[in-house]
Amino acid sequence: MAKPAAKQSPFAPSRLPQMPPVPGVRFAACEAGIRYQGRTDLMLAAFDPGTVAAGVLTRSKTSSAPVLLCRENLGHGRARGLVVNSGNANAFTGKKGREATQMTVEAAAHAIGCGAEEIYVASTGVIGEPLDAGRFVHLLGDLAKAAKPEAFEVAARAIMTTDTYPKLATRTAEIGGVPVVINGFCKGAGMMAPDMATMLCFLFTDAAIAQPALQALLAAHADTTFNCMTVDGDTSTSDTCLLFATGAAAKRGQQVVSQASDPRLQAFSAALHDLLRDLAIQVAKDGEGLSKFVTIEIGGAESDAAARRIALTCANSPIVKAAIFGEDPNWGRVVMAIGKAGEAADRDKLSIWFGPHVVARDGERAAEYVEETVAAYMKNREILIRADVGVGSGRATVWTCDLTHDYISINADYRS
Amino acid sequence: MAKPAAKQSPFAPSRLPQMPPVPGVRFAACEAGIRYQGRTDLMLAAFDPGTVAAGVLTRSKTSSAPVLLCRENLGHGRARGLVVNSGNANAFTGKKGREATQMTVEAAAHAIGCGAEEIYVASTGVIGEPLDAGRFVHLLGDLAKAAKPEAFEVAARAIMTTDTYPKLATRTAEIGGVPVVINGFCKGAGMMAPDMATMLCFLFTDAAIAQPALQALLAAHADTTFNCMTVDGDTSTSDTCLLFATGAAAKRGQQVVSQASDPRLQAFSAALHDLLRDLAIQVAKDGEGLSKFVTIEIGGAESDAAARRIALTCANSPIVKAAIFGEDPNWGRVVMAIGKAGEAADRDKLSIWFGPHVVARDGERAAEYVEETVAAYMKNREILIRADVGVGSGRATVWTCDLTHDYISINADYRS
Repeated sequence: MAKPAAKQSPFAPSRLPQMPPVPGVRFAACEAGIRYQGRTDLMLAAFDPGTVAAGVLTRSKTSSAPVLLCRENLGHGRARGLVVNSGNANAFTGKKGREATQMTVEAAAHAIGCGAEEIYVASTGVIGEPLDAGRFVHLLGDLAKAAKPEAFEVAARAIMTTDTYPKLATRTAEIGGVPVVINGFCKGAGMMAPDMATMLCFLFTDAAIAQPALQALLAAHADTTFNCMTVDGDTSTSDTCLLFATGAAAKRGQQVVSQASDPRLQAFSAALHDLLRDLAIQVAKDGEGLSKFVTIEIGGAESDAAARRIALTCANSPIVKAAIFGEDPNWGRVVMAIGKAGEAADRDKLSIWFGPHVVARDGERAAEYVEETVAAYMKNREILIRADVGVGSGRATVWTCDLTHDYISINADYRS
Repeated sequence: MAKPAAKQSPFAPSRLPQMPPVPGVRFAACEAGIRYQGRTDLMLAAFDPGTVAAGVLTRSKTSSAPVLLCRENLGHGRARGLVVNSGNANAFTGKKGREATQMTVEAAAHAIGCGAEEIYVASTGVIGEPLDAGRFVHLLGDLAKAAKPEAFEVAARAIMTTDTYPKLATRTAEIGGVPVVINGFCKGAGMMAPDMATMLCFLFTDAAIAQPALQALLAAHADTTFNCMTVDGDTSTSDTCLLFATGAAAKRGQQVVSQASDPRLQAFSAALHDLLRDLAIQVAKDGEGLSKFVTIEIGGAESDAAARRIALTCANSPIVKAAIFGEDPNWGRVVMAIGKAGEAADRDKLSIWFGPHVVARDGERAAEYVEETVAAYMKNREILIRADVGVGSGRATVWTCDLTHDYISINADYRS
């Protein structure tokens, strides 16, 4: 993992967003030397009493020890702290893995002054290596003391692995007239695929929302944002998306909302969706070794779910992604991918656009298709591929990147 | 497509198998100039009267015009001829595509002296370009006259696209004491995936077997051979596997067999399976840009089907394939792939071997694992990965190859 020498993504932002503090949340990070040298790899977030957590976790059958621990704690949803390390995923580490998470939550609970069941844990990095928590748990006390409300970038950098830039986003919304803030950051560049809460993503808000409502909102929006993004179709053992709500806005008069469908949550829900979408696109734009960011829009499918499966099949096709890298408007490969998705599609009504250019209509090459025009479009850094499969009104949008020599180099590089 | 300059697979055979003639089958090929220069690209096979055909075809929803035509003709199963062109897949070509296949079968039927419905067609190459059959149908008369029983290699070479060597295999068997021969050849190197009859594969036998029995045998064996092989997880619009039985062995006293379950077909069935397996492995060994051939064996799954899905998930994972290219025994990525397959697996009973070396047992790294030993094993050209997922007795074997810089180069190269 961790390739400090990796080329920076061409989509790395020239400046990071300004993150306002979230009342009730503080961060600190340090260099624990878990695997990397000369960079932070251990992060602690501390939450004020009354904070609740919502989460979506990987559906992998080989989930990591931290994922299993989060799943358990989400049963009650109370939260006072979060510990994240990079460099080691603590996945497929058996009994030792459970012991490492247990040692971590106990040390963090002692540092923060709360119950061990109120600590959430996430780990990212190499799979299968035992994680020696004894090497870092003694650092958690100092981290708890040093934690500051403004340290979002510090926290976001500590959880990176092959990421070439930290991914941060912030939004505001009003709930019953009271302004609240939602901040988030995430990591992920390879072993990224949909159909779960992808990678590590941590979200923080001062809104006062009951845990079941928070959980419902997060699950719904993760589905149309992170679960519509793919780098390589590979699902990690550790994917974790947690949203912590401190409820501090209640002190400013925000009444606690307990139903996700409450109209007072409309603006918050929209802001949360927008924030998740922003972060998901930031992840795709830092896909390992990418040269182009690709949006795939499928319409005319039997259902939205069918449209998403078709879009993901295109987005995960190595032969489609390599053609995009080669700047070849090889729409025949898009036809192939639509065909293999297994969803209903009417071959003789199928239409395809590359950017603004129609390339195929009603099941064959469009009369107005001019190869040179579309080839020139393919030189853009952001590519849009649209298709209408001609059977219904289902729609979906998926974000991905191309498949490049650098992806192979990054993933063929020996771990050590 | 067609990269004459592509590096030859390290698995290219030093000599091709000696193919005995199949009584009742003749071949010829020529340079029709459909897309390539200086090589054959049009092949005709002619069969004696009484020949029957069995076939398995792509399940793609964007099947090519030739696939639709074969599906129709397999309804009766009578066969007198087969026309295959390379350079153009005649896929996603709408009404023009159907006209091209119609023109082809009529010209071939005239050349051979049979009904148009007895001609089978397959096309491979670029998708979405109209195929101008008018440029080559006048050549079919001469091909029919020139066709010879021994021209297997000539035929196999004419259907190649990105293949770096022709793929041929031959077997013999006895049916009721009468010896029969089964010959086959196929093409395919990229856009190769399972869950259908992959790529183009043509098989020929002089056995006298009723069409429904022939169909049942082919479908069963394609499922455990071609459908267990993947290069890149991409399913072509044109995948076609056809088996032609001339019945010429009846003249030597072989009684026609009409049930696939007839014990007299046991040896034939075994030989057919062995032949298909041989060809499937030859295809994986010519996977685009490969440096290593990989066998994945999954045991302990809930069912054989579940084991196959897990094995294919490993075989199609870009991150697993890139690690193999990098000679990194990164078994953590195998854990990831098993986890994402969606099939039952007991994380705490999971065991993994790389070749003869156990790397993980009972859900964690094996005590006797020595990184250097397994790293040395990864330098082999043929890699075996085995895993037991600890929930049942389902088993499957899948063949694939690694993901390399050359795969990207081949598929990023502009088509023209």
